[in-house]
Amino acid sequence: MSDIEIAQKAKMLPIIDLAKHRLGIAPEHLDPHGHYKAKLSLDYIDGLEDRPNGKLILVTAISPTPAGEGKTTTTVGLGDALNRLGKKTMICLREPALGPCFGVKGGAAGGGYAQVVPMEDINLHFTGDFHAIGVAHNLLSAMIDNHIHHGNRLNLDPRQIAWKRVIDMNDRALRDIVIGLGGTANGFAREDGFDIIAASEVMAILCLSSSLKELKERLGNILVGYTRFDNKPVFARDLNAQGAMAALLKDALRPNLVQTLENNPVFVHGGPFANIAHGCNSVVATKAALKLADYVVTEAGFGADLGAEKFIDIKCRKAGLRPDGVVLVATVRALKSHGGVPVKELQQENLQALEAGFVNLARHLDNVQQRFGLPCVVAINHFTSDTDAEIALLKRKVEEKGSKVIVCRHWAEGGKGAEDLAREVVGMADAGQSDFSFLYEERAPLWDKIKTIATQLYGAADITADIKARQQLERLSEEYSHFPVCIAKTQYSFSNDPNLKGAPSGHVLSIREVRPSHGAEFVVAVCGSMMTMPGLPKVPAAEAIDVDDNGRITGLF
Amino acid sequence: MSDIEIAQKAKMLPIIDLAKHRLGIAPEHLDPHGHYKAKLSLDYIDGLEDRPNGKLILVTAISPTPAGEGKTTTTVGLGDALNRLGKKTMICLREPALGPCFGVKGGAAGGGYAQVVPMEDINLHFTGDFHAIGVAHNLLSAMIDNHIHHGNRLNLDPRQIAWKRVIDMNDRALRDIVIGLGGTANGFAREDGFDIIAASEVMAILCLSSSLKELKERLGNILVGYTRFDNKPVFARDLNAQGAMAALLKDALRPNLVQTLENNPVFVHGGPFANIAHGCNSVVATKAALKLADYVVTEAGFGADLGAEKFIDIKCRKAGLRPDGVVLVATVRALKSHGGVPVKELQQENLQALEAGFVNLARHLDNVQQRFGLPCVVAINHFTSDTDAEIALLKRKVEEKGSKVIVCRHWAEGGKGAEDLAREVVGMADAGQSDFSFLYEERAPLWDKIKTIATQLYGAADITADIKARQQLERLSEEYSHFPVCIAKTQYSFSNDPNLKGAPSGHVLSIREVRPSHGAEFVVAVCGSMMTMPGLPKVPAAEAIDVDDNGRITGLF
Repeated sequence: MSDIEIAQKAKMLPIIDLAKHRLGIAPEHLDPHGHYKAKLSLDYIDGLEDRPNGKLILVTAISPTPAGEGKTTTTVGLGDALNRLGKKTMICLREPALGPCFGVKGGAAGGGYAQVVPMEDINLHFTGDFHAIGVAHNLLSAMIDNHIHHGNRLNLDPRQIAWKRVIDMNDRALRDIVIGLGGTANGFAREDGFDIIAASEVMAILCLSSSLKELKERLGNILVGYTRFDNKPVFARDLNAQGAMAALLKDALRPNLVQTLENNPVFVHGGPFANIAHGCNSVVATKAALKLADYVVTEAGFGADLGAEKFIDIKCRKAGLRPDGVVLVATVRALKSHGGVPVKELQQENLQALEAGFVNLARHLDNVQQRFGLPCVVAINHFTSDTDAEIALLKRKVEEKGSKVIVCRHWAEGGKGAEDLAREVVGMADAGQSDFSFLYEERAPLWDKIKTIATQLYGAADITADIKARQQLERLSEEYSHFPVCIAKTQYSFSNDPNLKGAPSGHVLSIREVRPSHGAEFVVAVCGSMMTMPGLPKVPAAEAIDVDDNGRITGLF
Repeated sequence: MSDIEIAQKAKMLPIIDLAKHRLGIAPEHLDPHGHYKAKLSLDYIDGLEDRPNGKLILVTAISPTPAGEGKTTTTVGLGDALNRLGKKTMICLREPALGPCFGVKGGAAGGGYAQVVPMEDINLHFTGDFHAIGVAHNLLSAMIDNHIHHGNRLNLDPRQIAWKRVIDMNDRALRDIVIGLGGTANGFAREDGFDIIAASEVMAILCLSSSLKELKERLGNILVGYTRFDNKPVFARDLNAQGAMAALLKDALRPNLVQTLENNPVFVHGGPFANIAHGCNSVVATKAALKLADYVVTEAGFGADLGAEKFIDIKCRKAGLRPDGVVLVATVRALKSHGGVPVKELQQENLQALEAGFVNLARHLDNVQQRFGLPCVVAINHFTSDTDAEIALLKRKVEEKGSKVIVCRHWAEGGKGAEDLAREVVGMADAGQSDFSFLYEERAPLWDKIKTIATQLYGAADITADIKARQQLERLSEEYSHFPVCIAKTQYSFSNDPNLKGAPSGHVLSIREVRPSHGAEFVVAVCGSMMTMPGLPKVPAAEAIDVDDNGRITGLF
């Protein structure tokens, strides 16, 4: 059965009942969206402040490969398994973007028997958060060009607008455009472009804000461009945009409650990019979950070099969170891929390639254990092609590093298939052996922060940047050295080069561009070219998606 | 108190309770969106088929003036008043667009004590219908450029793409743009532009479709452009886009149930433009309301020349509806404005100007009574500046035309202020004196249809078109003569010229352009320049909109 077929057979509980019986939340604190999705009120969350926090478990992964690792399914499977063991557990996931569903990738609410439902809703409009973020973003865009059109009191330089437009659609034709054509009634012509909504700074801001007040302040701090001649920064607050933007986002800030196939509670809330942003679900949702449950399982985008680092140095630092343990997800197939095996040969046993590819896992494991001081267990997401010899080899190699391998079968078996992992995670989290620390000091110069990440986590020998980016970092350090850095590099390698699999060392990380996200309060160091607007493939997934006369959707994977 | 302050003081009933007790709808047939909005299932509506239909009352108006007429408030006030008289009544309104709230105009859910609530929700994201329509529209746009990028199997001419993009934002800079710049990776450069979502043909299609099946068929019939060299039409179905588009719209097709300030049920569903589209709420909502209530009050965009004509010749014709009576809304102020009085002098009594401006009302009244054969009552939306002499004059003039004037005070008093109107409407609808007919035959040539509308309703002597538009009409008549026509002309005058107030005669309606809406199944005759993307004013309303720490929105009018 396909993911959507499994999802459509799920016996969901009315979300109001689930919230009441499993989390003790009375119906008046929830805004239902249909019978199986609900938004939790911020007032209610504020009222939980005095409760103790549960344990926070981060699920991360090796560097992604075409073989697929299954970080989200492991997060869901682990959450279900913990609940099966009688541990009161919540799962916190990111919201999938809608656009990519019509391209190649399909849904992002888990897979197999480790899914979050209602799957179609979550993957399509869900509760409208992406739409709200898109409108809030584009309102600011419209106000910028409108300001220039009506006399440009602030003297904004149309050549230095730093705020693009966004749309939740894979639409390459909108990457580079010219707007304002057609004469005086339509404003001034200038270059512009659209990013997808996940790449909007508004998304990052929403995910890092703990209250409407903080959200509005951060929105006001968005840098929209620079003045002509004197190059002074202009912010969204200079256009009086933040109030209306926050009004558009007031519901989007409330976490969305849904459930797994096994009827366990999940927050699916916020979906920022993991390259130009921090790639984690919302602070509001994670904090609420820690008050509502004894264990909270969450994930972060891409591999541990990007996702876990940003989870820790951006999200945890900003929100005052402390993780209690980490699950590092890998597959035998993916490790063989890191060892140089082409996709079509991944089915065959290959111990040599597995050992070669293991270096990728080893580097991530070392980083988590040694750099962040966090206990870590390795979850192997089982495929039928995995051989006993391969698993045995992996176990030995991981044990040499002071960690454990647990083989998981949640994709095929649901929570039952991840019970071993759950037991290990409980032991790890309850042992309190975390010696957690951030990777760098908050007040270090931005250049040093980037260098620390590159050398300590990526195995780089050094970092480099052209003179403009270097000057920009120096200038930003004067005022914004307390900002964390957000590295935007390829997710496929520890280096700049996506083809360098495994665990490259001695490379130099080159910084191409620096983008301050003033509202989100981090500085993005762009290494290599980052795609913030995907395109559709030759035969888009959209062509196979359909809905029957009864409203049942097919072809969404 | 401002509209939003009145709205925020409303004592709303939980929508599930209201549906159950007032309409007999069990909770399982509703998808709640929060506690005060819900979508009604299409299955449930299908199950109502055997019930008799209630009476259908159309609220329309004189030609709009800067003074304001109050068509929506009269619709709401009349609905409340009918319910006060013990008549089981539903109201059917259009959904407001979000974008204009940030420009000049503010909300569109009634006003004063004749409002639909929750006002902020209805005016902002509501239940996400506009967002869904925008995404479905833009998915087709992306698939068009993607098709061209990946080899252009259909040989689509990039210079003849008939499908723009849409956004729910007043953003003049997006009216005329060039997309696909930046090199081979981004496709082929071509001219394009954005319309607001209300102007999307997808909106018109959604509002005219009675089922998901019909919706999908119509989406597939959308004309996206023409082939190069041989100029053959290319449709959305040729790109296999209709299934995914319909999947995105499956929830948007369900009518939204909300309530008035007086807790009476309202469907607010669908919001197509009233110039390039038909300007009425959805067929699904109107049909469902007729099954659920004994009286259904609905409105159509702009004056009766545009709104009522399209309501009858497009919506009623397509959906098999028969109105039972019409309310024609006017104000003393607006009629004086038609009589040539400038806005700042409208407060003063001016019988001469009122008599001069009355010709506008008289023409609309004649049209409704004589051309459509429908009984009609004139509702005067009361302002404190109206004098007894003015009202007396109006009464006499209207009675000479075989109709009645009823003075209404719903804005200040709610339903109580429209009870006289309600009594008159009940008498009119129950008398069964309707001698209803469409204005033109379904199979008449398109040219003749336009000429009939212009000469019979607008007082025009003739119609004219340049050779291209004329040829296009002839060509379209061969295949699409069964399509109704949709006149896109200024709403401010019976003529092409917005400055010709009152009731001009003998003018010639010139057709500038013809646009077939293949999916919506009508042919748009564009007379004059139509604005399908508004701009923001110098000081946009957005600057004053805010949300406090508790989520309460202010500054939205």
